[in-house]
Amino acid sequence: MTTSHDPPRLEPLLLGEDDYALATDLYQLTMMAAYRARTDLAPDATATFELFVRRLPRGRAFLVAAGLEQALAYLSSLRFSGADVAYLRTLPVFAKTDPGFFEWLRDFRFRGDVDAIPEGTLVYPNEPLVRIRAPLAEAQLVETYLLATINAQTLIASKAARVRLAAGERPFIDFGARRAHGFGAALLATRAAWIAGANGTSNVAAAKKLDIPVRGTAAHAFIMSFEREEDAFRAYHDAYPEHTVLLVDTYDTREGCRRAAALGPSLRGVRLDSGDLGQLARECRAILDERGLTQTTIVASGDLDEDKITALLAQGAPIDSFGVGTEMVTSRDQPALGGVFKLVERTDGARRLPVMKLSEGKITWPGPKQVWRVHDPEGRFTEDVIELDGAPGPQGSRALLRPVMRAGALLPAAYEPLAAMRARCAEGLAALPEELRRLHDFADAPIRFGPALRALTDSLKGAAK
Amino acid sequence: MTTSHDPPRLEPLLLGEDDYALATDLYQLTMMAAYRARTDLAPDATATFELFVRRLPRGRAFLVAAGLEQALAYLSSLRFSGADVAYLRTLPVFAKTDPGFFEWLRDFRFRGDVDAIPEGTLVYPNEPLVRIRAPLAEAQLVETYLLATINAQTLIASKAARVRLAAGERPFIDFGARRAHGFGAALLATRAAWIAGANGTSNVAAAKKLDIPVRGTAAHAFIMSFEREEDAFRAYHDAYPEHTVLLVDTYDTREGCRRAAALGPSLRGVRLDSGDLGQLARECRAILDERGLTQTTIVASGDLDEDKITALLAQGAPIDSFGVGTEMVTSRDQPALGGVFKLVERTDGARRLPVMKLSEGKITWPGPKQVWRVHDPEGRFTEDVIELDGAPGPQGSRALLRPVMRAGALLPAAYEPLAAMRARCAEGLAALPEELRRLHDFADAPIRFGPALRALTDSLKGAAK
Repeated sequence: MTTSHDPPRLEPLLLGEDDYALATDLYQLTMMAAYRARTDLAPDATATFELFVRRLPRGRAFLVAAGLEQALAYLSSLRFSGADVAYLRTLPVFAKTDPGFFEWLRDFRFRGDVDAIPEGTLVYPNEPLVRIRAPLAEAQLVETYLLATINAQTLIASKAARVRLAAGERPFIDFGARRAHGFGAALLATRAAWIAGANGTSNVAAAKKLDIPVRGTAAHAFIMSFEREEDAFRAYHDAYPEHTVLLVDTYDTREGCRRAAALGPSLRGVRLDSGDLGQLARECRAILDERGLTQTTIVASGDLDEDKITALLAQGAPIDSFGVGTEMVTSRDQPALGGVFKLVERTDGARRLPVMKLSEGKITWPGPKQVWRVHDPEGRFTEDVIELDGAPGPQGSRALLRPVMRAGALLPAAYEPLAAMRARCAEGLAALPEELRRLHDFADAPIRFGPALRALTDSLKGAAK
Repeated sequence: MTTSHDPPRLEPLLLGEDDYALATDLYQLTMMAAYRARTDLAPDATATFELFVRRLPRGRAFLVAAGLEQALAYLSSLRFSGADVAYLRTLPVFAKTDPGFFEWLRDFRFRGDVDAIPEGTLVYPNEPLVRIRAPLAEAQLVETYLLATINAQTLIASKAARVRLAAGERPFIDFGARRAHGFGAALLATRAAWIAGANGTSNVAAAKKLDIPVRGTAAHAFIMSFEREEDAFRAYHDAYPEHTVLLVDTYDTREGCRRAAALGPSLRGVRLDSGDLGQLARECRAILDERGLTQTTIVASGDLDEDKITALLAQGAPIDSFGVGTEMVTSRDQPALGGVFKLVERTDGARRLPVMKLSEGKITWPGPKQVWRVHDPEGRFTEDVIELDGAPGPQGSRALLRPVMRAGALLPAAYEPLAAMRARCAEGLAALPEELRRLHDFADAPIRFGPALRALTDSLKGAAK
């Protein structure tokens, strides 16, 4: 029963599966209603949309596709509740909309086809990460959520892959939860970083949901809650005799390291979080080694990114692993990915109508496409050919897009373990030629457009004249 | 019943209230267990932590506090489920931890005191946005989630306030859902932007949850799903005769504007999303006015930020409202806020032990603090004085922190309508002197530290020598 004065409540502002249907921009819903009202199209008219990135962000030689699983979770459980529809009916813009539209929303299911490049794949501009074929209204609705989840995870995975390249064989751990754009973003960032090669996370909720390794050390507050640093160290070591990694920079780093070393060889590691990490790592290594703690590792953290890690390793800093936070989970140097979702073909009855946008500077290549990946005989990545779907790819090439949903039903390929995505990314990085693997001054993305796609494009350009 | 082979499922990776307890870094949990094992402290020993920002990000004259409501929602409903505890017990780090710790977690409630600066307040470095006093273990656990939600919303509100200053009297609408760091981040960004003065959002789920205005136009895909632009315009106008704002840049903007104008004076607006927005706005205004559509508005969008809006208005572009997306919802020029959560005092029995961190470059001011805000007789903001809590503030000043939770129970001040936060931010912006209101080349933050705080700091520094 609702009283006239409901008690006040706090809004946690979390996104649940119940919120999926309205997790979109208003115009998607108004366009849906307008599409439904059309009488000029066959009842089975469809639209094909592709999700892609027009240009690489500066400082990225490639992207790492990520976020598909969450996109498919959304597509397969998207429903309009009675409350959703009731809310929409309160909006002035829908005041004159046919009530049949709202009844139709109550029965709405996404029943389209989805093809996608699997997560963990290295991808390049103009390559469709996701291709959706569905009735216009269905395909339109889902644009916003698909972009939000795939833009976000692809952004972070692409940054994390650079950290992976910089760290080489050394592990790096995601420490970013507190600086991600809210805890929901932290979950996505942890997943994306794991796919791209992170070796664990400090984020417990993410580790539990994703079944990945969770790691941690100790914080300044723990140290400062004791009168003396050595007492704090002892207490933590007593609690976790085999798992103690101590933060040694609360007061004086060298002195802290000596106090930590006094715990003896069971000390698993020390963490440096401030100051000249390279110099301090060398001094701490010497302190530890002198006392026979040769197995005790050194963890470095503190605003690390791929460039700082590269510089530390280049100077031979004896750092065994890295904690990486803010820079990675916000992709700080490039904090947004401009993925778009564009109409590339319509069908109207038996007619297939490729669609092309010709606005200056923003060409959208027409027609449903496939991406063919070419490797040389040594297994090195050579080039991608973007071609019309159905046209052949170059000999020996491999098609990247594969079916994951048909008529709204998930196919087996939709259920992929994270380990497979992670292995795919590692293979992709290993296959990169040197000129694409460099963190800076790398070569242009080696993509070209296939002959059938170019012929269609030329014919549409000709027709537009 | 669980079979030996569970069917595969997709992980939506959404944060629910059930996930709150593990929405933290692992080290918070290991430190909790280690705190609990301590015998050197009185059973009622407490810790006071303050959440603050050490330095303003470059390009920010002030911050706008936001995210407290979600932080309090978290604190008041944080519980460890049986599954949470079972998961923690699987972690090797806890293999030797006293089982009593896990039983204690099952009964865990946050029972601390919280004081905070209300949302929408303009704030400056070193000012505690949130102050928490609780048993050490409780205060430690909540650091990560509090930082994540308050860093994120304060970051976006601070950026959106700059857009508000740039747009002046013109409305601006949040269009950013697709480029936020996932849809969860989009919800937070919409809320933060609204507090800072946005006039609405395109994000339907956020609008419904927050009860704020939702707005939309139409997209290129709608236009391109018709053979002819004019047919698309007509169809949309027929569907929404009083609410039609048409995107006119799909093919040729001027021609698009003429076709839109042909719908007559009931056309509510046209939207420009590419090209030279100032020049196109002038030409479109002329086209509309010539045809008597003087009430039809011009909406501009497309990678807008506060600087582009300033430049457009400075050149007199006849733009009536702005759609602002990527730049605002990612705070693209400064995509992370370095809020920290630092121990400032412990109590042990009757003893109060102020805590101060003296590491080079990272001073943490000791003791629980209050912020006193001073205005001049004309109501202009003059300065803030950061002082020990309990010490008096300057005459005529107002204390910013207020109690919102005591012993884990929410106080009435915790339930504040968004409208009050929004009004507070508008008042704060209006009270800014010119040298702080400027978007660039602004003055330093006018804060100083009060005499009692300085005396305590000096005495602790002296003791440390």
